[in-house]
Amino acid sequence: MSAFAERTDKRAVEESLLLAPKFDADGLIPAVATCAKTGDVLMLAYMNAEALKKTIEIGEAVYYSRSRQELWHKGKTSGHVQKVIELRIDCDQDAIWMKVDQLGEGACHTGFSTCFYRAIPTGQVLDEKPYMMEQKLIDKTFDPKKVYGK
Amino acid sequence: MSAFAERTDKRAVEESLLLAPKFDADGLIPAVATCAKTGDVLMLAYMNAEALKKTIEIGEAVYYSRSRQELWHKGKTSGHVQKVIELRIDCDQDAIWMKVDQLGEGACHTGFSTCFYRAIPTGQVLDEKPYMMEQKLIDKTFDPKKVYGK
Repeated sequence: MSAFAERTDKRAVEESLLLAPKFDADGLIPAVATCAKTGDVLMLAYMNAEALKKTIEIGEAVYYSRSRQELWHKGKTSGHVQKVIELRIDCDQDAIWMKVDQLGEGACHTGFSTCFYRAIPTGQVLDEKPYMMEQKLIDKTFDPKKVYGK
Repeated sequence: MSAFAERTDKRAVEESLLLAPKFDADGLIPAVATCAKTGDVLMLAYMNAEALKKTIEIGEAVYYSRSRQELWHKGKTSGHVQKVIELRIDCDQDAIWMKVDQLGEGACHTGFSTCFYRAIPTGQVLDEKPYMMEQKLIDKTFDPKKVYGK
């Protein structure tokens, strides 16, 4: 028997407690990881069915790397494992939210604690182009060269 | 001149302050909205270039509805507008995070404050199938029939 239920009608998908995730044409579902302590969004990545099953099974974030085309157990190389505190799915079951305890210094391969280290000012008029961002995080929490060796 | 910069090499995309978002093959970028007060993820939806420009311009969340295939100014029907407190983009500029002030009673069309009202227990062995979820939110914050008229 499959780990996931069949997707029947909209009402069932929204109201039932049977897990029936929708994977897109590439077999992927987006997964957002937030820091359980601060509520900051750490990263957005993708899972395939195997990655989602593995995440559920081991309680650590396992994604599917689109660039490397392989299962990606986050932190296996860097030690920056994401312990899943809570795993949720949305109304139409096509998006995942994980509250995580981020081990190590940070989530992002650039050395920042979160991948979202730049902000776009809003209320800009359209003739100010191209849009310029503001740096929100200045100090990297780790040196990516030391952690990833590249 | 375009509102968005050209995407050149990886380093520039990650380190520059020029906004150069990556839209997928369908012209979309995923956008996560979190509640600025609680840090809860409210919803995950998609923006096309026009929706992102509009969001930046007016400071309220504007998505692209994949089902209706049109620009979707969140809250225009329900009054549940999302005022953008902060708009961020991730390292490779292919995901958006908005901290929002959610006006009205909730973000989800089902009547809950967030679309993520069910949790998947982790640490489950694979022979317990299909996976069952837990209801995290019980009381709907509004009656969708009254708000959406359907």
